[in-house]
Amino acid sequence: MLSRASGRCLLHQGRRYVYAASLSTQTGQKVITLDNMNPQVKKMEYAVRGPLVIRATAIEKELEAGIEKPFKTVTKANIGDAHAMGQKPITFLRQVLSLCSMPSLLEDSSFPEDAKERARGVLAGCKGTSLGSYSDSPGIEIIRRHVADYIQQRDGQPSSWEDIILCAGASEGIRSIMKLMVQHENGIRPGVMIPIPQYPLYSASIDEYDLHQIGYYLEESTNWGLDMAELERAYTEAKKVCHPKALVVINPGNPTGNVLPRENIEAVIKFAHERKLFLFADEVYQDNIYADGCVFHSFKKVMKELGEPYCHMEMASFMSCSKGYMGECGLRGGYAEVINLDPDVKAMYLKSISAKLCPTTLGQAAMECVVNPPRKGDPSYDQFISEKSAVLSSLAQRAKMVVETFNSVPGMSCNTVQGAMYAFPQIHLPPKAIEAAKAAGQLPDVFYAFQLLENTGICIVPGSGFGQRPGTYHFRTTILPQPEMLSTMLEKFREFHTSFVKRYQ
Amino acid sequence: MLSRASGRCLLHQGRRYVYAASLSTQTGQKVITLDNMNPQVKKMEYAVRGPLVIRATAIEKELEAGIEKPFKTVTKANIGDAHAMGQKPITFLRQVLSLCSMPSLLEDSSFPEDAKERARGVLAGCKGTSLGSYSDSPGIEIIRRHVADYIQQRDGQPSSWEDIILCAGASEGIRSIMKLMVQHENGIRPGVMIPIPQYPLYSASIDEYDLHQIGYYLEESTNWGLDMAELERAYTEAKKVCHPKALVVINPGNPTGNVLPRENIEAVIKFAHERKLFLFADEVYQDNIYADGCVFHSFKKVMKELGEPYCHMEMASFMSCSKGYMGECGLRGGYAEVINLDPDVKAMYLKSISAKLCPTTLGQAAMECVVNPPRKGDPSYDQFISEKSAVLSSLAQRAKMVVETFNSVPGMSCNTVQGAMYAFPQIHLPPKAIEAAKAAGQLPDVFYAFQLLENTGICIVPGSGFGQRPGTYHFRTTILPQPEMLSTMLEKFREFHTSFVKRYQ
Repeated sequence: MLSRASGRCLLHQGRRYVYAASLSTQTGQKVITLDNMNPQVKKMEYAVRGPLVIRATAIEKELEAGIEKPFKTVTKANIGDAHAMGQKPITFLRQVLSLCSMPSLLEDSSFPEDAKERARGVLAGCKGTSLGSYSDSPGIEIIRRHVADYIQQRDGQPSSWEDIILCAGASEGIRSIMKLMVQHENGIRPGVMIPIPQYPLYSASIDEYDLHQIGYYLEESTNWGLDMAELERAYTEAKKVCHPKALVVINPGNPTGNVLPRENIEAVIKFAHERKLFLFADEVYQDNIYADGCVFHSFKKVMKELGEPYCHMEMASFMSCSKGYMGECGLRGGYAEVINLDPDVKAMYLKSISAKLCPTTLGQAAMECVVNPPRKGDPSYDQFISEKSAVLSSLAQRAKMVVETFNSVPGMSCNTVQGAMYAFPQIHLPPKAIEAAKAAGQLPDVFYAFQLLENTGICIVPGSGFGQRPGTYHFRTTILPQPEMLSTMLEKFREFHTSFVKRYQ
Repeated sequence: MLSRASGRCLLHQGRRYVYAASLSTQTGQKVITLDNMNPQVKKMEYAVRGPLVIRATAIEKELEAGIEKPFKTVTKANIGDAHAMGQKPITFLRQVLSLCSMPSLLEDSSFPEDAKERARGVLAGCKGTSLGSYSDSPGIEIIRRHVADYIQQRDGQPSSWEDIILCAGASEGIRSIMKLMVQHENGIRPGVMIPIPQYPLYSASIDEYDLHQIGYYLEESTNWGLDMAELERAYTEAKKVCHPKALVVINPGNPTGNVLPRENIEAVIKFAHERKLFLFADEVYQDNIYADGCVFHSFKKVMKELGEPYCHMEMASFMSCSKGYMGECGLRGGYAEVINLDPDVKAMYLKSISAKLCPTTLGQAAMECVVNPPRKGDPSYDQFISEKSAVLSSLAQRAKMVVETFNSVPGMSCNTVQGAMYAFPQIHLPPKAIEAAKAAGQLPDVFYAFQLLENTGICIVPGSGFGQRPGTYHFRTTILPQPEMLSTMLEKFREFHTSFVKRYQ
């Protein structure tokens, strides 16, 4: 799409790309031009849907049109999109959506009673008992209450439904909170600390809002550990050029797949408290924990358990129905738990989301199923548990399979995928490959990814889209293709990497 | 919600309100405070969900708690939310949503074949044939193609599917385009011309993006006509302080209910062309035309029919599944047709929406039903037409009923509601009422609206939330309560207004 609309799409400098104007452009006559448009929009980038993905989609169309390639299908391992990769929806969740959409089905005896009860509850919370009415801007009250119950159950710590803001996916929630911080003082921008590598929603939003990005490196040698000395270094350096205001932690990690140990979370909270940083806890992969000995600890729980003075810190934690065992990306359901906001700021926050009216009610209904699933003894319980476990155990197997394969390929090394849905292996590229990339006007990892795509049909995202230590090269792949497809993909990967390295030896 | 979170909520200056800090605030210790937060977020307002609505919701809770009031229920005539007011969903649309959510229902013989066909088409367009997968950021291709077909059919002018951007309601589309224009040159802001009265999404977004609002008054004496001399006046005055960049037209009008005649649209297009303005055509009420002799003309159609040089103008037109006969506000479905963009700018636009991943797939499926409804001969056709006509003809009756009643009350006058879903009557307030408002620290129309709410339970939005000529007072009410409820509401209104005027005579 992008490349068609913009003519040719040139990559250069890795993170930055320019679009060559198509011949028909009459820039001088347009109201909005590249020169006068919003510079922050120009600057922002989102690698997960960047030029590689555009090319992958074009290749799919070429294959459809019968053009011969060394492969028959494109494997989109670029995005955490489980259903696109063949994962089946959770039956209970879809039954509830179906019942909510068409309440006459509540009379249908083939639907289980617990799904009906859930649908009745959601509909009773809707104005006019219809999902077609606007909800309150922070969401349907009964669902917000159930989210709070879920969190309370998870953490053993109180949660207030008035702190729960339902949103159209976690991204919307993250952006709406980040937006609150935008105020330059004497030209000095607020700074937001983000891990490197990071999920590019953060860098894109930071650019769009003209904030200052403070990257702290995760430590590859300790399985992408969050090192406190590195956090301190990043903060101290950034303090010279911006006002550090917030700290983002992604746990389990995207793209890194690490799971933070509790002591680490405690240290991060203390660090943020001492430096007066607002905490963003991106916890959308909280159900995706695979490695032995790894446990998910929410930042909220740890902060509350630390007691005074930490328990009063401002924090927002995010959850989504797109990940976990649900994988319902298209439904756009999510929530933010926003705690300890100044009440006046909270009022402004609620006002700011009111102009967007409300998050999709069907996405809210999906979140209801996530936080209020069938309980033991309910008619749907057995099927629900069996579907949920099947997804999660298969993901755990695939996480292992990916890591083992990559580590068995000479010139590649991959940390354990403890959680989330991605591996972020390092690739060791021969100097001649780096030169070839330079000659092609591409960053080495981008060059590698394009070569991989054109030769195997596998679409991954180069490490430069997430950030990496200078001189190192990585890529992110999801672990989401179904086992057989994944196995084929990994074999192709091995062949490609081996011949790529050989070619540039 | 807002008032609980923020302590007491004080109204002053009409459009601006401040929140009194609650006692528990420890502003000095918070990371985000009223002083250091985003000033644009502080400034923006959205009256349709403002303090009156917050009070109305509080009153509902008081009634539930058994507190005695002069009324038994609150009537929320503040927002265009048809289902909340008792309108029933269109069966076909909900069948399609239900089938998409639970494809096993495709085997159920009680669903009509055309609904199944639509669901199969949508699912075939989804990755992994699941609505749970992300769509492309501008939407599912097959639905974009159907939107283009619908527009082509409507206008008799070509429409390209690549110009169609599906979005989570029209609001999101409007904001995403407006955002492109944000670039201050030497401290001078781009200006956006909007009608006064206007739908406050525009003023809120203009404030949030720090653009300059250029209001042009609609002419109440000619049924809220769009007067070209007034457009010229507003432009000329604004040119001194900003760079006018865009012109917003809402047709049919919100809150004014006017429908623009074709000559008027032609004149507006020529005006925008001469002054190099980007056109925003807010056409979400295109199905809601009631008055004899009124016809909906899309800006796109008129622009294309005008031929050179107008047919190359940059324009975005917006549509939604929230209004029309569907009233599916909660589903968040909508589209923008964005034409004649500079291709490089379009590429940037597509990039900018990619970080938001995609609009809700179920909202997209709802739009599919709107643009691709049952055709003559299809099994659902008769029921569909009967439901659609029933809604539209009842709305036409209610539009008449509202206007006739208001015009029969001394001290009120109301223009014909030619289209959309609202009346915007003028109220003539006695000087003593204006003094009483002043003493209460409220604008006169806000004072009136609060008195109405507390005495009758009717919630409307004061004219100051939309803008009005200085010294005039209005309010917006929807025409959406079902006929019996509307009739009761209008009788209460008459009694209230009469006694209000008497009291302050």
